[in-house]
Amino acid sequence: MKQEIKPATGRLGVLVVGVGGAVATTMITGTLASRKGLAKPIGSITQLATMRMQNNQEKLIKEVVPLASLNDIVFGGWDIFPDNAYEAAKYAEVLKREDLEGVKDELQAISPMAAAFDHNWAKRLNGTHIKKATTRWEMVEQLRQDIRDFKVANKCDRVVVLWAASTEIYIPLSDEHQSLAALEKAMKENNTEVVSPSMCYAYAAIAEDAPFVMGAPNLCVDIPAMWEFAKKMQVPIAGKDFKSGQTLMKTVLAPMFKTRMLGVSGWFSTNILGNRDGEVLDDPDNFKTKEVSKLSVLDTIFEPEKFPDLYGDVYHKVRINYYPPRKDNKEAWDNIDIFGWMGYPMEIKVNFLCRDSILAAPIALDLVLFCDLASRAGMCGIQTWLSFFCKSPMHDFDHLPEHDLFEQWRMVKQTLRGMVGEKEPDYLA
Amino acid sequence: MKQEIKPATGRLGVLVVGVGGAVATTMITGTLASRKGLAKPIGSITQLATMRMQNNQEKLIKEVVPLASLNDIVFGGWDIFPDNAYEAAKYAEVLKREDLEGVKDELQAISPMAAAFDHNWAKRLNGTHIKKATTRWEMVEQLRQDIRDFKVANKCDRVVVLWAASTEIYIPLSDEHQSLAALEKAMKENNTEVVSPSMCYAYAAIAEDAPFVMGAPNLCVDIPAMWEFAKKMQVPIAGKDFKSGQTLMKTVLAPMFKTRMLGVSGWFSTNILGNRDGEVLDDPDNFKTKEVSKLSVLDTIFEPEKFPDLYGDVYHKVRINYYPPRKDNKEAWDNIDIFGWMGYPMEIKVNFLCRDSILAAPIALDLVLFCDLASRAGMCGIQTWLSFFCKSPMHDFDHLPEHDLFEQWRMVKQTLRGMVGEKEPDYLA
Amino acid sequence: MKQEIKPATGRLGVLVVGVGGAVATTMITGTLASRKGLAKPIGSITQLATMRMQNNQEKLIKEVVPLASLNDIVFGGWDIFPDNAYEAAKYAEVLKREDLEGVKDELQAISPMAAAFDHNWAKRLNGTHIKKATTRWEMVEQLRQDIRDFKVANKCDRVVVLWAASTEIYIPLSDEHQSLAALEKAMKENNTEVVSPSMCYAYAAIAEDAPFVMGAPNLCVDIPAMWEFAKKMQVPIAGKDFKSGQTLMKTVLAPMFKTRMLGVSGWFSTNILGNRDGEVLDDPDNFKTKEVSKLSVLDTIFEPEKFPDLYGDVYHKVRINYYPPRKDNKEAWDNIDIFGWMGYPMEIKVNFLCRDSILAAPIALDLVLFCDLASRAGMCGIQTWLSFFCKSPMHDFDHLPEHDLFEQWRMVKQTLRGMVGEKEPDYLA
Amino acid sequence: MKQEIKPATGRLGVLVVGVGGAVATTMITGTLASRKGLAKPIGSITQLATMRMQNNQEKLIKEVVPLASLNDIVFGGWDIFPDNAYEAAKYAEVLKREDLEGVKDELQAISPMAAAFDHNWAKRLNGTHIKKATTRWEMVEQLRQDIRDFKVANKCDRVVVLWAASTEIYIPLSDEHQSLAALEKAMKENNTEVVSPSMCYAYAAIAEDAPFVMGAPNLCVDIPAMWEFAKKMQVPIAGKDFKSGQTLMKTVLAPMFKTRMLGVSGWFSTNILGNRDGEVLDDPDNFKTKEVSKLSVLDTIFEPEKFPDLYGDVYHKVRINYYPPRKDNKEAWDNIDIFGWMGYPMEIKVNFLCRDSILAAPIALDLVLFCDLASRAGMCGIQTWLSFFCKSPMHDFDHLPEHDLFEQWRMVKQTLRGMVGEKEPDYLA
Repeated sequence: MKQEIKPATGRLGVLVVGVGGAVATTMITGTLASRKGLAKPIGSITQLATMRMQNNQEKLIKEVVPLASLNDIVFGGWDIFPDNAYEAAKYAEVLKREDLEGVKDELQAISPMAAAFDHNWAKRLNGTHIKKATTRWEMVEQLRQDIRDFKVANKCDRVVVLWAASTEIYIPLSDEHQSLAALEKAMKENNTEVVSPSMCYAYAAIAEDAPFVMGAPNLCVDIPAMWEFAKKMQVPIAGKDFKSGQTLMKTVLAPMFKTRMLGVSGWFSTNILGNRDGEVLDDPDNFKTKEVSKLSVLDTIFEPEKFPDLYGDVYHKVRINYYPPRKDNKEAWDNIDIFGWMGYPMEIKVNFLCRDSILAAPIALDLVLFCDLASRAGMCGIQTWLSFFCKSPMHDFDHLPEHDLFEQWRMVKQTLRGMVGEKEPDYLA
Repeated sequence: MKQEIKPATGRLGVLVVGVGGAVATTMITGTLASRKGLAKPIGSITQLATMRMQNNQEKLIKEVVPLASLNDIVFGGWDIFPDNAYEAAKYAEVLKREDLEGVKDELQAISPMAAAFDHNWAKRLNGTHIKKATTRWEMVEQLRQDIRDFKVANKCDRVVVLWAASTEIYIPLSDEHQSLAALEKAMKENNTEVVSPSMCYAYAAIAEDAPFVMGAPNLCVDIPAMWEFAKKMQVPIAGKDFKSGQTLMKTVLAPMFKTRMLGVSGWFSTNILGNRDGEVLDDPDNFKTKEVSKLSVLDTIFEPEKFPDLYGDVYHKVRINYYPPRKDNKEAWDNIDIFGWMGYPMEIKVNFLCRDSILAAPIALDLVLFCDLASRAGMCGIQTWLSFFCKSPMHDFDHLPEHDLFEQWRMVKQTLRGMVGEKEPDYLA
Repeated sequence: MKQEIKPATGRLGVLVVGVGGAVATTMITGTLASRKGLAKPIGSITQLATMRMQNNQEKLIKEVVPLASLNDIVFGGWDIFPDNAYEAAKYAEVLKREDLEGVKDELQAISPMAAAFDHNWAKRLNGTHIKKATTRWEMVEQLRQDIRDFKVANKCDRVVVLWAASTEIYIPLSDEHQSLAALEKAMKENNTEVVSPSMCYAYAAIAEDAPFVMGAPNLCVDIPAMWEFAKKMQVPIAGKDFKSGQTLMKTVLAPMFKTRMLGVSGWFSTNILGNRDGEVLDDPDNFKTKEVSKLSVLDTIFEPEKFPDLYGDVYHKVRINYYPPRKDNKEAWDNIDIFGWMGYPMEIKVNFLCRDSILAAPIALDLVLFCDLASRAGMCGIQTWLSFFCKSPMHDFDHLPEHDLFEQWRMVKQTLRGMVGEKEPDYLA
Repeated sequence: MKQEIKPATGRLGVLVVGVGGAVATTMITGTLASRKGLAKPIGSITQLATMRMQNNQEKLIKEVVPLASLNDIVFGGWDIFPDNAYEAAKYAEVLKREDLEGVKDELQAISPMAAAFDHNWAKRLNGTHIKKATTRWEMVEQLRQDIRDFKVANKCDRVVVLWAASTEIYIPLSDEHQSLAALEKAMKENNTEVVSPSMCYAYAAIAEDAPFVMGAPNLCVDIPAMWEFAKKMQVPIAGKDFKSGQTLMKTVLAPMFKTRMLGVSGWFSTNILGNRDGEVLDDPDNFKTKEVSKLSVLDTIFEPEKFPDLYGDVYHKVRINYYPPRKDNKEAWDNIDIFGWMGYPMEIKVNFLCRDSILAAPIALDLVLFCDLASRAGMCGIQTWLSFFCKSPMHDFDHLPEHDLFEQWRMVKQTLRGMVGEKEPDYLA
């Protein structure tokens, strides 16, 4: 059962798509500040969490499995704007100026490579720092070259590619996504309707032996072609859509109702946010992608087919509203209509005044570090055990996703135990 | 491992202290209506919940273990007011008139026995239907006679006693509570300062071989004397304080923060309610008992000693406000101050418009049925596996309570599996 | 200054468009119950409010001016469903069954006349009780005949027509609306693109000397053609869009900010409601009409051109979400971003758990009674003094609307004082 | 009617009691920054508001009456801690560091004089910068000398004294407060039970011809003795208790319900705050003073004796909770139970995330400037026209306070018009 895990020696390159965005700059600043002792990586499982071992003792996860050290990370990436990470972080207005100053030099040293971008996939964005490529295949080639160059220039032993850029427009699964051959054909024929820019990044990463993490709800790696490619190349892929705020709450409250056998008649979720992500999602085509991701969680938790009296008629609605006065400070408001004993109705309202990037940053870091670990442990393809971090956990056609946060957490721990050959502790002991 | 469980044959008497109160009449009405098919016992684990078996199939809990049938229950009890259950339910204004009508006859047939009561332990209450007893010991004797009489009159094979009455004033653990002998001595000497009326009910129940459930936060059975007595008499005891609304929420949200390694700097919880319970809690001495119960949950979940950076300085405050306009419709408002990546603060506000008795009724029923099961399975003393239903899970001095709702749920299932000799299913299979 | 006002003798017919809807049946039931002493007309200015007279004494408004008595009202109207008012009220689920029983006979006696309806103007509605008319002009003729018939059959001296039906789709002001002649031509030519069904009701009412009240945000009487017609026929018209919940709140809070010179950077308003109105507004064309009405209020209160530092950049967004679990119980949630001293930001969140029809019913009744009064006092055309009751107060092109609730209230009192020749009391005396 | 107003020539000394507190340092910093063009005095009526003149034109208030210019103000005051205003402002954590830097020199130059303090009146405070005085009378003498010294040292023509310090403990009106002679006698006899430190400040101010503003709910100038003294010395006094957040909201919402004839059954208001004010109010004796102030507003607005069906049974409860995680960012939560047509209940919840000192600062400044104006206009005693700024408007025994914000605003404007001999514009013109 115990797996052979290669040690985390050498430097780990972390290449972020959207490296100048709010999430990326927040993650990078916090990581750099943490390794200088200027901040704490609050919210990061890899850095702070413990798990109970067979002998019933708690141990830091990073002492259980051989994770890359924050000190060994080199950040880089692509962006549609040419600003360096310091300038970009100032623009994002997530972090206070004084928190940026402590790592100003390091941030200024991070300049984005030109992005692979297609305006049709994110109409609200108008970038200026864009690759020129006549086909999607050429786009891939350029990205692969970028990865190789970065690795050499920064003396990296390994690289992980992380998508922390915007949500692309919604597209359904089509024939071109069903096999690697079909996808490559579509890329070469430059079928820009079905091959998104994010697919080019994912393909390039896998081709270069770099684990790929999808932080947005894009279809991207959620297709058989990519699963096939990842298995073939022995590369882990993970995603999708960081489970940061409202959905995090939902995947905790829904299990509570279920566990307590309380019925649910309606769940209305609305959001206001004013950052670039909000602006992109103001386009109905892009919102559709997000909506599908956010709507999916309740059904698999509630299992309405098993409990029709309780969950057979849940009216679930999700809205996102672009609201500039708030910038990155997303506000979520949920109204949940539940019913109890004899069917009597009750209401719960949750108002979450969150900070989008503050919640997403440690998730992004953890996914990167766990994917690197998985790679060294010889795991490849979809990393279902990382569902814990995702609104829309990837899964193949033979499995259902697990959305319950605490079940997801159990999956993380079981997987880690499996890697090092530990058994589950006996809670009744 | 598998236990011998006596079958649930014959009638089960359920004697409720405070049988005319809002919780009791709601529980009784719903149970009677459910067995006539007029309502559904939403929120009841014993009636609706399933669990996964060794073979990975889901099965209704009531098909896994031999629970008493709702049809075999006979309700009775004590109250400080003489109204029958129909009149009392109308007064409580929890249920709609039309829901009472369907079981009007059955409700009218339930008339309370005179209550064992001491005004000093609940100064806001002025009952008229009260036992006369010169000592606490005589109070016990009268209650024991009541139980025996009820059993004969109603041809019951078994009886469970449930406290669904008000919160008593706060008292600390004292020497008289440390051993059965000391407690009995105090009862005989009529030490009314340390022996509460609820202790008399509990003692009488245990003496008559009836499992005892404490639904309020009263000290009552949470003392070594009662643990000793319950073990000696081979009777299960369970409690305390139904985990119905705000604390239910808290024991789900706190594990979420913990699991995600998000820090917490403050948690302010306030409540408004206007029922008799609210009136009693308007007395600071009675509120103290409740406050201690409600405040206890965070520390054992957060483990501040292990995670000082995250939970070392949580300012936790709980308030309950008597507010008559609301009657039984309790409203809870929580403000939670959390912090994430690099220490940045965020806020969550939860507004729970609940119905106190609607949430408590199925918990009361489940505790009764599970205690009866435990009794038939030969389990006695504190039933820690029933922590799932309680704000302040009982525990002896060698153990810490478990507050995390999902860990508590796992304990319920493990115990039930143990009873029938089933192993845990493999979730990764 | 004092006006000659005809006495309110004889019976007043109140013909409601949408007489089977939630607002109409609630208004009718409450009026009937009030005159039997079974309920109180809470929220009604005409029935309950007082005003201060010149001699500084408070007097009931209905004792200041000669309003029609509730006892003299006869209700009737049109609906796209044939149910009588009792059946319709049960369907609406606004009022408790026991409140309907008290006036069941009277409600059952109210059967709607077939409605003038055009599916293109409310695509979510599928009525069955519809007039057949080949042109808009013929529609008008049938409605006029209905009014005359009702007046005779019910021995009414006067009639008021009230629109309490759904919001029609949005249309801009067009040439056909600019003069009476143009409008009549469009009706005769059956231009169904610019002549809405509600215009037919309004035209018919005015033609029959009946004041017309527009309770929805429809363009309808908000056009020069109708102003011309109302003046020509000497008939009062009033509207539009009952100011019941969220906007009521807004026109009180906005003046507070203004009065205290607090700045506003954003105002996000969302609603969930599940009644027929919510269903109609789920169609973007119909929502547009409502949105325009709801968005208009802030600018005229804030006067951003005068106070650019405070209100020059207010991001105002209004959303309505169809959410069936709530039925008529509309819930509004406002988030207001304000700023104070030195520009520091603060937030206000208002959560209004209201009942749409309970709030609208007294407004509808008051508008009817005040329009009848205005008619007897010889006032005609737009009744700006009734802005107090409306989200979108009607106004001609030479005037701005007044949205501040307290300024509107002052206008009501000044107008009433004017009618009876009273001067304003001196508040400093 | 027009009054002779002395011009605002020369320098105006503003002496603040609690000059190192959050409110004072915020007011001072903002004023200094405003006159340097570094910030805007948002929320200040004197600096920003306009009023409509007889000719229906809007004019800035500061152009209607001769107010002192911000440039002519010299700040000073007393505090129980010796820190200069820059240090104190940093400690208060209300304003961002960068906002303090712009006026650092000016702030550093403001050092508090030793405070007149009595620990029994604010038990949670432990100051170190305290006057020594054997009697209250001596305390007064020292304060008078302070005022005179400040005036000379800073070349001030006029001085206003502003109480921006903590709430003192609750005391009822007693015989010693009924006349100037009795009060002076109590001071000389050092009756520390009935003469609070704040009374010493007030007495000293009046004696030195300086208008006195009471920003807290202290009894202080709300007694016949002070009214007599103020009249005798021809000095204006104003207060009490800045109407900044929750009560501001209340005095706007209550008039809305009243104007619309909506009933109210309950109003529950709770607050969390963590600044020094919150700490002081955590003592029940001090909270009592605040509670009385906050509870008073509803009755005079609702006039339950006139509208018993609507307001005859309002359950009003106010709570303040010390909650350190929030510091100066007070959060208020109101739940209002209203009822409408036929008595149907509805609920409104208001959550105000405010900044205590940001809201209070412009009020404090306005009260100072208007009192200085009043003094120059020959007005003395209670300034009822400044009720607009106060939770508990001062009033003698022959008058009721006016709490409705919009009526209060009308009083401000009428008074200003009176000063300059303007008539009210005709709103119907």
